Amino acid sequence: MVGGEKEVVNRLAPIWDTISPGVDAAERTPGRTGEPSSAERGWLHCGPNGAGHFVKMVHNGIEYGLMAAYAEGLNVLRNANIGSVERAADAETAPLAHPEYYQYDIPVDDVAEVWRRGSVVGSWLLDLTAEALHQDPDLTEFSGHVSDSGEGRWTSIAAIDEGVPTPVLTTALYSRFASRDLDIYAEKVLSAMRKGFGGHEEKPTGE
Amino acid sequence: MVGGEKEVVNRLAPIWDTISPGVDAAERTPGRTGEPSSAERGWLHCGPNGAGHFVKMVHNGIEYGLMAAYAEGLNVLRNANIGSVERAADAETAPLAHPEYYQYDIPVDDVAEVWRRGSVVGSWLLDLTAEALHQDPDLTEFSGHVSDSGEGRWTSIAAIDEGVPTPVLTTALYSRFASRDLDIYAEKVLSAMRKGFGGHEEKPTGE
Amino acid sequence: MVGGEKEVVNRLAPIWDTISPGVDAAERTPGRTGEPSSAERGWLHCGPNGAGHFVKMVHNGIEYGLMAAYAEGLNVLRNANIGSVERAADAETAPLAHPEYYQYDIPVDDVAEVWRRGSVVGSWLLDLTAEALHQDPDLTEFSGHVSDSGEGRWTSIAAIDEGVPTPVLTTALYSRFASRDLDIYAEKVLSAMRKGFGGHEEKPTGE
Amino acid sequence: MVGGEKEVVNRLAPIWDTISPGVDAAERTPGRTGEPSSAERGWLHCGPNGAGHFVKMVHNGIEYGLMAAYAEGLNVLRNANIGSVERAADAETAPLAHPEYYQYDIPVDDVAEVWRRGSVVGSWLLDLTAEALHQDPDLTEFSGHVSDSGEGRWTSIAAIDEGVPTPVLTTALYSRFASRDLDIYAEKVLSAMRKGFGGHEEKPTGE
Repeated sequence: MVGGEKEVVNRLAPIWDTISPGVDAAERTPGRTGEPSSAERGWLHCGPNGAGHFVKMVHNGIEYGLMAAYAEGLNVLRNANIGSVERAADAETAPLAHPEYYQYDIPVDDVAEVWRRGSVVGSWLLDLTAEALHQDPDLTEFSGHVSDSGEGRWTSIAAIDEGVPTPVLTTALYSRFASRDLDIYAEKVLSAMRKGFGGHEEKPTGE
Repeated sequence: MVGGEKEVVNRLAPIWDTISPGVDAAERTPGRTGEPSSAERGWLHCGPNGAGHFVKMVHNGIEYGLMAAYAEGLNVLRNANIGSVERAADAETAPLAHPEYYQYDIPVDDVAEVWRRGSVVGSWLLDLTAEALHQDPDLTEFSGHVSDSGEGRWTSIAAIDEGVPTPVLTTALYSRFASRDLDIYAEKVLSAMRKGFGGHEEKPTGE
Repeated sequence: MVGGEKEVVNRLAPIWDTISPGVDAAERTPGRTGEPSSAERGWLHCGPNGAGHFVKMVHNGIEYGLMAAYAEGLNVLRNANIGSVERAADAETAPLAHPEYYQYDIPVDDVAEVWRRGSVVGSWLLDLTAEALHQDPDLTEFSGHVSDSGEGRWTSIAAIDEGVPTPVLTTALYSRFASRDLDIYAEKVLSAMRKGFGGHEEKPTGE
Repeated sequence: MVGGEKEVVNRLAPIWDTISPGVDAAERTPGRTGEPSSAERGWLHCGPNGAGHFVKMVHNGIEYGLMAAYAEGLNVLRNANIGSVERAADAETAPLAHPEYYQYDIPVDDVAEVWRRGSVVGSWLLDLTAEALHQDPDLTEFSGHVSDSGEGRWTSIAAIDEGVPTPVLTTALYSRFASRDLDIYAEKVLSAMRKGFGGHEEKPTGE
């Protein structure tokens, strides 16, 4: 994803071709014929200075959305297993609406593995997820505080500048903020309101 | 918000009128003339059995959205104050993009108070918020684990059944789930992916 | 919501007091005693230059969220009435999951009216909604292309800068973008994917 | 993704193995050793009756999220090109905040192509998108009314039952609802409110 003046970028084409994945890194897209384009070889002149960064920024914004989609879905699977650690710890404040329906024992690691072959959700991110879950389905190594490195923020700001809705991408970004407890004051305000209009006290949790 | 057979509901009208807030509880809506309707007196026959509960359910679904709107906005204000407790505790993983712009010392309690008079966001929920913030702008009494009591869930399920989008109402509901850490496994999956493709380690936090 | 140097703002206090709603515009917040503060009289020195605009910006960001909460909830009510214009026109692509449960004839205008008295969702925005719905419950005057005037965008950008999640406020903003069909290319991409992996053709709609 | 009694499912293993993609359909996950498991061969006994459907349901829920992530990102890219059809048609109601920054001429079809090789967002869905965009970057064949076939709804309902937040998956679902204009009444309510408190008239659009 290269930005810059046309002549400059083209003069450096041999370098781009050398460091790019190359045409064989994927099957050819049906309908593409003739000499493979630079995009097919693995690099693209996206426009003037900045255009390459812009495209890479959106790439990462999409990445946040894709990651969140897998993460949320796997969380639904895990919580369909009654015995899961989190649900046991937080039973009082998080009752299942229909506990009789959620008594599975779904092996989340094997689900990620089986989806790697022939399913619509196959991807490199899924490959990585299957590997991590095979090592430890409980992911006990991780605390769940997820950083963000800028591009997801910039993608959402660009979307807002453009007036283009990106609810999935921005929601994925916000989930990362919330994973670092940056929503804590907002949540306290909610508890204060609930106490105000209904006398609701916060329930203790297992956390 | 009453549901039931017409004759039955109407026969009980004197009871509804007795326990309702009454027409004087609000200024009359411009355009409404003649004898005040039951809705203006404070009760409404919404339809057959179940219709009253349905309307009350949606009422509460809206309530969740309204509450979240205030909570999120006040969180933005609070985090515009550099010295805030949360940001100080979590400085490493949550850098401000433009710290030079967020050095206010906005009194969140007084903001809630000033909005109570003549602003577009005036409401009873805001009155309660102003009261809670006056008692303690830091809301130290609360941990931020927010319960939900069913109606918000049912509103979102009804919306999905109808094929009607309620992104704000459902997002508000999901924020409550996340406040109880029910997103923890999803967040761990994100951290596992980030380690997989970029070697990113989770950063320690002040939590 | 005033920003500026302390001495300047205080010197102009008589002007602020003159144009403010005044303390009688709302019941006093329980716990507030003594001489009413400027916030109680209807104006607030929020901080240095820019602080007033910042607070007003967040006020409008909250406003977007509140408005969306009412709008979504009323849409759920309206679509619970089988005979509604939109559902009839779009029956093929938008089947109800459980049509037997959504055969109400809920008077949306009267619901807005009844909520004005003694309910948790009472507010000035609800008053305005009740007035508009009393004039025309179908809102045929409107096409549903909703503008945004900047503050909602700026609030979301500030939230992203701060690393603070505002999923409800930003979602409300994005719904406005989508109401102006700025999501159209994204939706076409979805249809193209569906055709690609499942041979799904777009269904005609009544629109 | 098979559900059923253990003996029954195992007895039919030869059938599952015959119709499954097979172990060679993907590179082996690092850390997996020995005889390939059934998940690696392309099928999985997920649990008792219903478990297979549950896992497939979540698969499709994830699919909705993934699709939306690509679609939103590509929409940001397209709208970074000043000359795009949609923006030209809707210039009045959708001004760019910083038009000087969004004057690219990014070839969206080639971007999808270049991401297919060596990028984090590579997937089968991206392959399909690249193919569709190569045929017609404007996707003029499509109107943007996106159907949903049930699983996305059920995934969100399961998440709500479980008390697990799936903001990305549900937001993706709601965008489909909105693409079929099922948000129209909500948007009209917003316009009615804006007229009520600010005298704002809806602006005409190019649609």
